[in-house]
Amino acid sequence: MHVTITGAAGFLGLRLARRLLDTGLRDSGGRHQAITRLVLADRILAADLNDARAQPIIGDIADPAFVDSIIGPQTAVVFHLAAVVSGQAEADFDLGMRVNVDASRLVLERCRRLGRTPRLVFTSSVAVFGPATTEAPLAVDPRSSYGMEKAVAELMLKDFARRGFVDGVVLRLPTISVRPGLPNKAASSFASGIVREPLSGVATDCPVDPSTVLWLLSPRCAIQNLVHGAELPGDRLATARVIDLPGVSVKVADMIDTVARVGGRGAEALIRHRPDPAVERIVASWPPSWDDTAARDLGFVGDDDFDAIVRAYVEDDLPSSSTAAPLSATEAD
Amino acid sequence: MHVTITGAAGFLGLRLARRLLDTGLRDSGGRHQAITRLVLADRILAADLNDARAQPIIGDIADPAFVDSIIGPQTAVVFHLAAVVSGQAEADFDLGMRVNVDASRLVLERCRRLGRTPRLVFTSSVAVFGPATTEAPLAVDPRSSYGMEKAVAELMLKDFARRGFVDGVVLRLPTISVRPGLPNKAASSFASGIVREPLSGVATDCPVDPSTVLWLLSPRCAIQNLVHGAELPGDRLATARVIDLPGVSVKVADMIDTVARVGGRGAEALIRHRPDPAVERIVASWPPSWDDTAARDLGFVGDDDFDAIVRAYVEDDLPSSSTAAPLSATEAD
Repeated sequence: MHVTITGAAGFLGLRLARRLLDTGLRDSGGRHQAITRLVLADRILAADLNDARAQPIIGDIADPAFVDSIIGPQTAVVFHLAAVVSGQAEADFDLGMRVNVDASRLVLERCRRLGRTPRLVFTSSVAVFGPATTEAPLAVDPRSSYGMEKAVAELMLKDFARRGFVDGVVLRLPTISVRPGLPNKAASSFASGIVREPLSGVATDCPVDPSTVLWLLSPRCAIQNLVHGAELPGDRLATARVIDLPGVSVKVADMIDTVARVGGRGAEALIRHRPDPAVERIVASWPPSWDDTAARDLGFVGDDDFDAIVRAYVEDDLPSSSTAAPLSATEAD
Repeated sequence: MHVTITGAAGFLGLRLARRLLDTGLRDSGGRHQAITRLVLADRILAADLNDARAQPIIGDIADPAFVDSIIGPQTAVVFHLAAVVSGQAEADFDLGMRVNVDASRLVLERCRRLGRTPRLVFTSSVAVFGPATTEAPLAVDPRSSYGMEKAVAELMLKDFARRGFVDGVVLRLPTISVRPGLPNKAASSFASGIVREPLSGVATDCPVDPSTVLWLLSPRCAIQNLVHGAELPGDRLATARVIDLPGVSVKVADMIDTVARVGGRGAEALIRHRPDPAVERIVASWPPSWDDTAARDLGFVGDDDFDAIVRAYVEDDLPSSSTAAPLSATEAD
């Protein structure tokens, strides 16, 4: 089975690549297939996976010739993860439009022109929603350029799928926590930073009020959901092209309490409260939760609670030099 | 005051042009201004308005150089009416994307690059909504390519406005009835045809079930609302960039009864019931009404009832050779 990942040098892309090379994918008939070719498309070289099946292709995802080169007649599944994150899309409007809208359209058009329809798994975000109120239900009403761009791409994908141009599914991701590695330009970067940095003995800023409530998903569950989005039979997606993935709703103050329990008071003391109005405005426009019943009915998964999220981080990603104490809860699977 | 109308050869564009040349516009300070230059942009030549201020410019609205030529540093207001209608956008996907999405973005970008912000009045449609149900509130969930394309343009305009790139407003139009002239490729074309044709002694097809309920607005009120959208002070739009215009909710069977009253049984007999599943599917996905309180609070107007809509057509547009009887209701203003 030939598979393409865009944004493959990103942390989700790389982790997904490893998972696919390890375990393969079930095809539309439910049969398990090994990956025979995995195109890792990004503008920078992804980490070397030491696997002859993995083929990095470097280029600009908004260049039609590049998109043609990474998706071909043999491609069975495309994971389109390439994106400009929220903070950066707000700072550089044209770059956000180019990558989040124009490149997504190129991917859709490429799949359409192939004449057959690879499964296209596209990631979207909490940012497409407007602020939740007690009177008004959650509605697509983005308050950031990133959210607008993701909402535009969602609308295009749904119509391409309705017309039979692509076999696509949009997975709306909660805020991913805990991302390993360095802070990025996403407004939600702190949602990983306030765990990751203190547990490694590094000071970090919390730019939002501790009463802020976030809707979170671990990288571990995110990867499982991306794979599930590729494996779900097409008939189960016919009436559900846009999936609000499961999440857990957690107050920032409770996240910090968990850090204190795992890393001790010394870790907690490394979190400096430095309100950033620009970040607060964007984060406050995101929903603190959403109805994930439909997603769970389709077999998508979430974390049990924030402890499980931190446990997954400690197990999967925490550098071994860290002194974090294990959480006393039962082990995650 | 310099004003540009795109899609100016269309019937709303032409009617708006005549109205602007006749009465001018109030500027942002509430002062009445005469139109000194009116650019009529379209791909075909609009009817000659016999007015030296009216300047037809012929070209392709999806061509950046053309868009640059029709909106300039002096342009105070842009009415962006150019569009590929619903039936045509469904039949020719690429044409719909090109005009309804790409050209709208070019207009937004042109306004942005001017460095000042002309008022941009953009027309959208019932087609952005998904089917209304008793459980779920009306939501942007288009079931046609036309609806998707309008929803995409709405999202872009809102974000351009949020960022201060344009001073824009989206007016979501109900189905316009009664359009004069010939049938067009809109799925809603029949909503005018079943009145216009019989009152002129011409046979016509009704492609939907008589129980279908439509949300209608007369051309007369539509023009008044376009002008109002250009004149509203910007501070009143700050939190309401997308306006669901007023309308009246009318059952197709009741529309036909009105035709019988105005044109007699002979007129009614000219309406042939010929169900067209493609049209029925699209029309059934549109809302039969929506909440227009916010629009009315802002001073936008609707028709009193369907009799008023037919009366406006008879007064404004019905060819004088027609034998339609006047409606007994009081005269419209």
